[in-house]
Amino acid sequence: MQFTSERRLDDGVLEREFTLGEIPGILWTPASAPAPLILCGHPGGLHMMYPRLVARARHAAAEGFAAATIELPGSGDRPRSADLEQARADLRRALAAGEPVDDEIVDRLVLPLVDKAVPEWQGVLDALLSLPDIDGPVGYSGGVIAIGVRLAVVEPCISAAVLFAGSFVPRIMFEEARQVTIPLHVLLQWDDEGNDRQMALDLFDAFGSAEKTLHADMGGHAGVPQHAGDEANRFFTRHLR
Amino acid sequence: MQFTSERRLDDGVLEREFTLGEIPGILWTPASAPAPLILCGHPGGLHMMYPRLVARARHAAAEGFAAATIELPGSGDRPRSADLEQARADLRRALAAGEPVDDEIVDRLVLPLVDKAVPEWQGVLDALLSLPDIDGPVGYSGGVIAIGVRLAVVEPCISAAVLFAGSFVPRIMFEEARQVTIPLHVLLQWDDEGNDRQMALDLFDAFGSAEKTLHADMGGHAGVPQHAGDEANRFFTRHLR
Repeated sequence: MQFTSERRLDDGVLEREFTLGEIPGILWTPASAPAPLILCGHPGGLHMMYPRLVARARHAAAEGFAAATIELPGSGDRPRSADLEQARADLRRALAAGEPVDDEIVDRLVLPLVDKAVPEWQGVLDALLSLPDIDGPVGYSGGVIAIGVRLAVVEPCISAAVLFAGSFVPRIMFEEARQVTIPLHVLLQWDDEGNDRQMALDLFDAFGSAEKTLHADMGGHAGVPQHAGDEANRFFTRHLR
Repeated sequence: MQFTSERRLDDGVLEREFTLGEIPGILWTPASAPAPLILCGHPGGLHMMYPRLVARARHAAAEGFAAATIELPGSGDRPRSADLEQARADLRRALAAGEPVDDEIVDRLVLPLVDKAVPEWQGVLDALLSLPDIDGPVGYSGGVIAIGVRLAVVEPCISAAVLFAGSFVPRIMFEEARQVTIPLHVLLQWDDEGNDRQMALDLFDAFGSAEKTLHADMGGHAGVPQHAGDEANRFFTRHLR
């Protein structure tokens, strides 16, 4: 892991860009480091997502958490995948036409992404956990929800997750969802224009966790209200401290 | 409204029992009164429900709210209704047998209760609002959810509601749900043994409110976790202060 830039934000949070092999990422640590770590998932496109990611990281830092994110394979400055681009275009076309989204499109879009991204997250997590700034349990927060599901199953370091039910999940992954046992806080935007509500409810039902909360709000995909973010933070405070 | 008893709880909350006509009730006011008021709904049986009601009232008082509750018609020490008892027995039998609950039973159980209880709540609310201890906006909290729905539509003094989706709602009342416009925080116990989850989700969807949150947890009907109660309180703090 190589740090490529470092700056101190006005609230004392240290922001460092890094690369691990070809994967770019950002680490935010609070003044109170060493701190427990929250991995911040997102739909891909680190530059575009930066304003929302840094807001989430500062929010987390205010509660004493470090936060880290990485670019997804095939997004941002990383090499494009023709298959992924095609699947994305097919999904967008179906949504724009108001058609039901074929399972086949979802599988083609999400399964290869999960297969590639999860080992990358695990590699970055290993590297982060060796830093003196990071200590204690790890949480995963955000989308792509299928990546969160797989990580929650295969990565024993992750002890709690806030999952954003704002993207499609391959039906075949519902079996994995049944294997999730860590505490979950699932955010659903009730009228999310890029999601399938019934699929999100079925997925919530499938999770094997004894402690799971579904928190649904109005406001569309990007309209998660402030109080929902606050509550997600409190969830991490209950489980990671 | 006649006060029949008065005592000061150890946290400074003043607890007063009252009657309004034949309706018994309890009012809790914080040391910081005058205070906004939360009406505490429950399934009936004031004595049996007292421990949970006083816990909710103290929780509310800690945030600066007064709280009040009344006995439901046909419950506790109030005269029984043969029709209501019969409908309750029919519902219990269907649930115990694991059968789907007939709409006809729900209508027979809930509609007369709503028709009787809502004007009683309104009468008590009028009396409470004339007290010097009560000031500011009013919230409704709890079950019977159909009573909360009707109150939210017909009682303009109620400006926010925490609804507990832990009892059946007549299908005919979904039209009323569409007329609800106040901010709502709906609590659902995902595996509630005395409820129909799909009905609760349909009802949440039906509410006309631009601001509505669904908060679902595990743990069965009586297992609402502490953090869900805390969040309901924060909802009232956002909307009643």
